[in-house]
Amino acid sequence: MDLNGLRVMGIDPGLTRCGLSVVQAGHGRAVFPVAVGVVRTPAAEDLTGRLLRLSNSVNEWMDDYQPDVVAIERIFERGNVSTVMHTAHAVGVLVLSAAQRGIPVHMYTPSEVKKAISGNGRADKKQMTIMITRILGLSEPPKPADAADALALAVCHCWRAPLLARQAALTSVPRQGQHP
Amino acid sequence: MDLNGLRVMGIDPGLTRCGLSVVQAGHGRAVFPVAVGVVRTPAAEDLTGRLLRLSNSVNEWMDDYQPDVVAIERIFERGNVSTVMHTAHAVGVLVLSAAQRGIPVHMYTPSEVKKAISGNGRADKKQMTIMITRILGLSEPPKPADAADALALAVCHCWRAPLLARQAALTSVPRQGQHP
Repeated sequence: MDLNGLRVMGIDPGLTRCGLSVVQAGHGRAVFPVAVGVVRTPAAEDLTGRLLRLSNSVNEWMDDYQPDVVAIERIFERGNVSTVMHTAHAVGVLVLSAAQRGIPVHMYTPSEVKKAISGNGRADKKQMTIMITRILGLSEPPKPADAADALALAVCHCWRAPLLARQAALTSVPRQGQHP
Repeated sequence: MDLNGLRVMGIDPGLTRCGLSVVQAGHGRAVFPVAVGVVRTPAAEDLTGRLLRLSNSVNEWMDDYQPDVVAIERIFERGNVSTVMHTAHAVGVLVLSAAQRGIPVHMYTPSEVKKAISGNGRADKKQMTIMITRILGLSEPPKPADAADALALAVCHCWRAPLLARQAALTSVPRQGQHP
């Protein structure tokens, strides 16, 4: 199954910093960088204003780059409680932007992304940055870390998408005796 | 400070069931029920579709009832991890709807709401339902619990708003020597 031309938006969700990327799939495992950036919202502003800023920015990205699919990091309850909640609120807003445009959303855990990109589910940030720079043929490592993570998410989906498509095709095969 | 006529939307956030209410403040502590309901999204649907349904419903409520302010329950990390995350995603989407309309959002913990309504921060569901039914002069107790909670949140804000307004007025008094 060839997904040549598939445009994937990778999102490393966050309220203070949200990494965004767009990667285009080529033939086989070829992947090409289209855009990468980080949306920041001021910590001094209230939640209402910050979510609106984030939503406006991701809407602009989606309208500018017209991704076919969104790959976003699946978040877990760990670390600072308030940060986790803020990130979860941000995920709601980010997923909504995709939903409003009919763009499907796939979630990947950090270890799924690490495994896909580096072959090691426990790769550190440095290893991940080296790998993503090499895979996308970038002239220098993407910065900050959120930008690199967003690229890794998008590439992870490019490589997982053919498998997911095959699985979906298998499960949607009409059962014997069914006449559509 | 009289907030006669203030329209408060109360939201008990959730993805499976989200309680919504609109209450109008009268003179003093008088409060009048305007609307109450529960938005449900099917558990079988994916997160993307569910957040879109929730967002569309709350947008409709806001456009129909034109609240001046939103009071929403502050959520904590407790209970089932996946439920908490779903609720946190829902909060992001709900707060965004208010933000897009320039409606300010206030968050209250469950114990703040219980204290305001019943005088007891640890009141149980039954006590809360009795109190909210009496306070709003309802002919029967609101059902389900999410609807009652949404009403309690709105009444809580009606009663806290004059205090918050006085505090805001105090902190915005120009300092001596300042000439605006």
